[in-house]
Amino acid sequence: MKIVECVPNFSEGRRRDVVEQILDAIRRTAGVKLLDSSSDASHNRTVATFVGDPQGVKEAALAAAEMAASLIDMEKHHGEHPRIGAADVIPLIPISGVTMDECVELARELGQEIGEKLSIPVFLYEEAAAKPERRNLAAVRRGEYEGLKDAISLPERRPDFGPARMHPRAGAAAVGARHPLVAYNINLNTGDLRVAKAIAKSIRGSSGGYPSIKALGVLIEETGAAQVTINVCNFRDVSLPRVFETVKSEAERYGVSIKSSEIVGLTPMEALLDAAVFYLRLDGFQPDQVLEKRL
Amino acid sequence: MKIVECVPNFSEGRRRDVVEQILDAIRRTAGVKLLDSSSDASHNRTVATFVGDPQGVKEAALAAAEMAASLIDMEKHHGEHPRIGAADVIPLIPISGVTMDECVELARELGQEIGEKLSIPVFLYEEAAAKPERRNLAAVRRGEYEGLKDAISLPERRPDFGPARMHPRAGAAAVGARHPLVAYNINLNTGDLRVAKAIAKSIRGSSGGYPSIKALGVLIEETGAAQVTINVCNFRDVSLPRVFETVKSEAERYGVSIKSSEIVGLTPMEALLDAAVFYLRLDGFQPDQVLEKRL
Repeated sequence: MKIVECVPNFSEGRRRDVVEQILDAIRRTAGVKLLDSSSDASHNRTVATFVGDPQGVKEAALAAAEMAASLIDMEKHHGEHPRIGAADVIPLIPISGVTMDECVELARELGQEIGEKLSIPVFLYEEAAAKPERRNLAAVRRGEYEGLKDAISLPERRPDFGPARMHPRAGAAAVGARHPLVAYNINLNTGDLRVAKAIAKSIRGSSGGYPSIKALGVLIEETGAAQVTINVCNFRDVSLPRVFETVKSEAERYGVSIKSSEIVGLTPMEALLDAAVFYLRLDGFQPDQVLEKRL
Repeated sequence: MKIVECVPNFSEGRRRDVVEQILDAIRRTAGVKLLDSSSDASHNRTVATFVGDPQGVKEAALAAAEMAASLIDMEKHHGEHPRIGAADVIPLIPISGVTMDECVELARELGQEIGEKLSIPVFLYEEAAAKPERRNLAAVRRGEYEGLKDAISLPERRPDFGPARMHPRAGAAAVGARHPLVAYNINLNTGDLRVAKAIAKSIRGSSGGYPSIKALGVLIEETGAAQVTINVCNFRDVSLPRVFETVKSEAERYGVSIKSSEIVGLTPMEALLDAAVFYLRLDGFQPDQVLEKRL
């Protein structure tokens, strides 16, 4: 069964009725299931998570983008989070039975439909980017909604689909494909923040570590324990057991051990099976040996 | 979603048309899915694996037992494997969202229907046993089909449901509930069979080890490596990582390390998640954080 995940971000986190109408556009699409949504008032932004077959996901994303465009006026939007439009960013994520190439193709189809049917300029980003400099979402969003109104007429900021001018209310949209992200925290047996920071620096891509790892050292107030808080942006490149073992080894250099770890929110089953395969030294294991995968 | 697994054994492993008609009785029942079947000519026996919601599983098992009774004549059955009837043994196994108590109740309902509707004597066994001496399937099958024809009239061999005499063609049936079984092999970095045998002895219940572990030491001819071949009869009592770590520790006593391990056939996801929780020291992990569980 082909399963794609979609985690769109909408520029509304305060008006509950508007958020519900956007979520309803997802809920009433056949073949998809809304798993989660979370609204943040200070960001004035809502993140939804839904899954389904590729065509259903494309339809639901288009319907939600259309609803967002009809209800959100970017001229009146204020919030702390960077944004360029009503349906600000729409990433498609391969979960099961689907390749990244298929998600890239799906993102391009979705981008074209949003551009042509809704007259909203669309920028393809990350794995779906048509230009290498647009892989980075931050580059696509540079200047935000207000700045992009002028910049969009520049050749280097021309959208991949839709008109080369902002939609008068809905702005623009970034549509992309990316790997599943696992939010993973490792708690250390120390209250020394410097140790957590040093470990984070050693594993994250931005300072020479694993390219698909983002990490910070933080101090958890309730427990007084130092924590390495990690985004595993591609667990197929760097598995959770490899992250755990690297952190364990770096911690030992400071005489510190790992107390526990935690997975925040949802994660694909495959990311957890990696731990069974690694630590149990499983030979020839196939994911379809998992009984639940056969259902 | 409530998911029960059923792994019935039928006393026919040679006539393909008979096996297919029995499997079709399962396939055409709504709410269940046939996952696997395997026929053995020397045992003259077929094992089917199907899953579904509790009521669907009960209906499919009853339909398959009825079809087996109409097509298999135990008077003419010969095979190496012990057996008492056409639908010889029918275990129900809780997989997801279902307790063992619910499976025990379901086994009793199924046993009653087989007894009353098909006039086949039914013995409840393992977790569903109504008498402690019938927990052990081997005790229920003592004397096999031929011996049970006389013995069934004895008070201590009286069936739990149905008539106290063998069905003239279909014999009797054992209906039970049990935990999911994981077939798990651990390969050692040695060709010394004695080491594998000593480790097997130390972990299995029959010689003082874990009650839910069955284990043997064997030599794999192709690789020349010694292997501990294990049935984990209740991974909720003894998890795979605990089995692995116990074998690793016992092996070290002989200066031997673990080369690899393997899971044979299907396993519930939970048995593998145990490894992630154990080795990654996951705090507060909930199985419904697995994205695929939400579908």
